[in-house]
Amino acid sequence: MTSKELFEKIKNKRSFLCVGLDSEFGRIPEFLKMGNNPVYEFNKRIIDATAPYAVAYKPNMAFYEAYGVSGWVNLRMTVDYLRTNYPEMFIIADAKRGDIGNTSKMYAKAFFETIGFDAVTVAPYMGEDSIKPFIGYKDKWAIILALTSNRGAENFQFTEDRYGGMVLFEKVINQSKKWGSVDNIMYVVGATKADFLKDVRRLVPDHFLLVPGIGEQGGSLSETAKAGMNDQCGLLVNASRSIIFAENSENFAEMAAQKAMEIQAEMANLLSEKGVI
Amino acid sequence: MTSKELFEKIKNKRSFLCVGLDSEFGRIPEFLKMGNNPVYEFNKRIIDATAPYAVAYKPNMAFYEAYGVSGWVNLRMTVDYLRTNYPEMFIIADAKRGDIGNTSKMYAKAFFETIGFDAVTVAPYMGEDSIKPFIGYKDKWAIILALTSNRGAENFQFTEDRYGGMVLFEKVINQSKKWGSVDNIMYVVGATKADFLKDVRRLVPDHFLLVPGIGEQGGSLSETAKAGMNDQCGLLVNASRSIIFAENSENFAEMAAQKAMEIQAEMANLLSEKGVI
Repeated sequence: MTSKELFEKIKNKRSFLCVGLDSEFGRIPEFLKMGNNPVYEFNKRIIDATAPYAVAYKPNMAFYEAYGVSGWVNLRMTVDYLRTNYPEMFIIADAKRGDIGNTSKMYAKAFFETIGFDAVTVAPYMGEDSIKPFIGYKDKWAIILALTSNRGAENFQFTEDRYGGMVLFEKVINQSKKWGSVDNIMYVVGATKADFLKDVRRLVPDHFLLVPGIGEQGGSLSETAKAGMNDQCGLLVNASRSIIFAENSENFAEMAAQKAMEIQAEMANLLSEKGVI
Repeated sequence: MTSKELFEKIKNKRSFLCVGLDSEFGRIPEFLKMGNNPVYEFNKRIIDATAPYAVAYKPNMAFYEAYGVSGWVNLRMTVDYLRTNYPEMFIIADAKRGDIGNTSKMYAKAFFETIGFDAVTVAPYMGEDSIKPFIGYKDKWAIILALTSNRGAENFQFTEDRYGGMVLFEKVINQSKKWGSVDNIMYVVGATKADFLKDVRRLVPDHFLLVPGIGEQGGSLSETAKAGMNDQCGLLVNASRSIIFAENSENFAEMAAQKAMEIQAEMANLLSEKGVI
């Protein structure tokens, strides 16, 4: 998928919502836990309920890996279900991978070939050869961590470079943007740090940003849009727990749909205010 | 395993060799590819051949994930085989994980509980709450990326902090060492950057270091030992491809044993020269 195609989908749906499938087995409704592949069954219902309001889904690998082989079976079934029933969706592996070149190449194979993801989140610490293997695939994306939504972001991401005047997350963006294009690189910028979205936009006015941190982490959607939206939207905003675990009863899917719809309605307004749609 | 227990194993084996199981399906001998679980069958033979010369094994997750569910089956079988037949071995998941706290917690569960690894390599970019969940397990270890062996290490790891006078990899070590102890934190420092091992030792004289990059990546074992060894050894030096893919024929395991034995002999000399054994 190119950035232009992604923008078309955003316009059609009047939404830039990414639903995070952080589908922790312990938090899914009890009645689903009895059957086979409960996490897949949960995801299927969440996807069917929220698809009208979303343009992207983002399984978070940790919640599948925690259950080993059966976790990977549920992950695979989830991505296959999305591909078959909602082929228009942009599917992100939230994996935060990154290793020496020959190893990153195998991670890229895992997510782009073995499982058919459109994008993978990658960690920049190991530099260019750790990220390049994710950029070489046609219509696939590397989503590079820049400024993350967690408290620990403050430990290293604001390290001020003695030469060049940038802090680390800016340096990451400024260097890595040369390794690819607006059609294969996005950046993670947390909604909890919306003040810095303007700095990010100065460095990459046209790149898509994947923004986690609204909902349970406390970031604001309207602040994010105000500081980060460009004339092609340029944002995918993720919500995970606040949608998928909105309710723990048999009505969990209806409540997830309700939450997703509320966010989509706000997104439609923001897109309209900005003159994007 | 505590650092003292690990040192005891090093003294017994006169070795600080970690064998990296970067067991790429495409590179294993043809005759093994026909059977069930070929990567496991390959690993089993490599382990049996090299165990006399090694104190640790390090499966590299990418090479298992690249084959999806069957990759995880082979990984699981490999770790179970090690646990059952070589309970004294220190088993490292080379995973380079790191995410917001509630997600890192699930990665820790995946590697320490679902699969019984002793240690996981973690990326520091996201800071304290991304690493802490790996430190809370009794006798388990977080191995934090400091200075990696690849070319891309130069992109960000040498960023000089305007305040405090350290470069990023030093800052990572200096901050993160406060989050745990010599019994649950190690650092990755590439053998290709042995010159910097002295800087690392000034910051963490007593921590174990996991050193990749000898063999195919070109780092020197003796330079590494000279700059990085402390009086409790303090080093695990990894070799992957140079051992496991030393030979592609039916004699691959014998050749792997030969390579491991050569490295162990050099290690025994270095330990002896330094007065550690």
